[in-house]
Amino acid sequence: MIPPPVSSRRSALKHTLNFCTLGTLWPLSNSLAQAEVKTNMNPNPRLHSFIGGLEGPWRVTSQRTLIGDGLSPVTRLNYLPENITPPPSHASWVLHGATSNERYVTRSEKEQLLAKQKALGRLEATCAVLIPIKKNEKWWSLTQDERREIFEAQSHHNQIGMDYLPAIARRLHHCRDLTSSEPFDFLTWFEFAEEHTAEFDKLLTRLRATEEWKYVEREVEVRVTKA
Amino acid sequence: MIPPPVSSRRSALKHTLNFCTLGTLWPLSNSLAQAEVKTNMNPNPRLHSFIGGLEGPWRVTSQRTLIGDGLSPVTRLNYLPENITPPPSHASWVLHGATSNERYVTRSEKEQLLAKQKALGRLEATCAVLIPIKKNEKWWSLTQDERREIFEAQSHHNQIGMDYLPAIARRLHHCRDLTSSEPFDFLTWFEFAEEHTAEFDKLLTRLRATEEWKYVEREVEVRVTKA
Repeated sequence: MIPPPVSSRRSALKHTLNFCTLGTLWPLSNSLAQAEVKTNMNPNPRLHSFIGGLEGPWRVTSQRTLIGDGLSPVTRLNYLPENITPPPSHASWVLHGATSNERYVTRSEKEQLLAKQKALGRLEATCAVLIPIKKNEKWWSLTQDERREIFEAQSHHNQIGMDYLPAIARRLHHCRDLTSSEPFDFLTWFEFAEEHTAEFDKLLTRLRATEEWKYVEREVEVRVTKA
Repeated sequence: MIPPPVSSRRSALKHTLNFCTLGTLWPLSNSLAQAEVKTNMNPNPRLHSFIGGLEGPWRVTSQRTLIGDGLSPVTRLNYLPENITPPPSHASWVLHGATSNERYVTRSEKEQLLAKQKALGRLEATCAVLIPIKKNEKWWSLTQDERREIFEAQSHHNQIGMDYLPAIARRLHHCRDLTSSEPFDFLTWFEFAEEHTAEFDKLLTRLRATEEWKYVEREVEVRVTKA
């Protein structure tokens, strides 16, 4: 059963079993295949790690469990734009997440965000907060329109965030579709100057009171300052 | 700078540095932390692997490159509901992807799909096709509303798929947010009886002619039959 050729607009059709470029995949040779497993495991360039332990540039000032199981207490936090394997010996836990395409924001909302938001790493932003959350199965069984309806129409998630720009800078990391089973679905990292701490607290209070938060089954809050 | 306590609706507030449940994370002890790295790397239960090589229950009848770089030619394919590390010695390549929540389908569309679609693994479905695709940066920089507009309003992706149910069973795997950098963004697996091959060809022709496909920068097609 050889199907008819399929036309291609942008590349010459390469026929069955012609040799093609391997890309990042393994070569046929057995020993090479074994040897290349690790080198070909190129990390996702959008992957980040949060390392909780005894070392790191961020000093933990508060670590609290809001919903569900907590995390082992740590005194320092490191936030790195890469995967850390094996974890450093001082680490109690390492959480991984990848930045990705937006899942709910519309073009007009994105334009508003881009116009107001500031990047991470500002000198005056000596305070930061890591908030790992996990949503329940009910949330993940919803369809896209239902999740968007809860996220924005009912919970105004995006609009609430907008109210605290540019003071609060934020980066979202996704954990649900990583290769390993991660304990949280999202890791959000916030940075702000100490004088904006009360504003940040208001942002959290408003988000946690939303309809969307009823689907959160685990939430931890790790507050840090630059050491 | 200790922030004020934050109220929680569903769990007692555990205060700073109280010991909390570790879950799947690493213990504090150095030697244990090192030893537990692998055992705690619980795989994502939704992860699947496609192993192209010399062994496996699916015999390759056709392997073609539609757009961009191809894959090394193989004679057999295996499709497993797990990660395979290291890959078997006969393997030329292993592609990974995770099933996940739907990104575009609405509740009414999902209800229609559920009413018509059949599960994988039907006895009569002796033909299968693996289609790995990668979309370009332009696609991924679009916002959710823009992608949905192209996906359904312009390209009728879901509606086209509906037209071939229940004959063609399908499962989508996401690769973009895995821990490793994968060569494709999506792996779609189709299963059907041999008598529905012409219908499957029409489905592909229609999908490849859509506006959505202008964002595809790499596409390979591996057709197989039950060995």
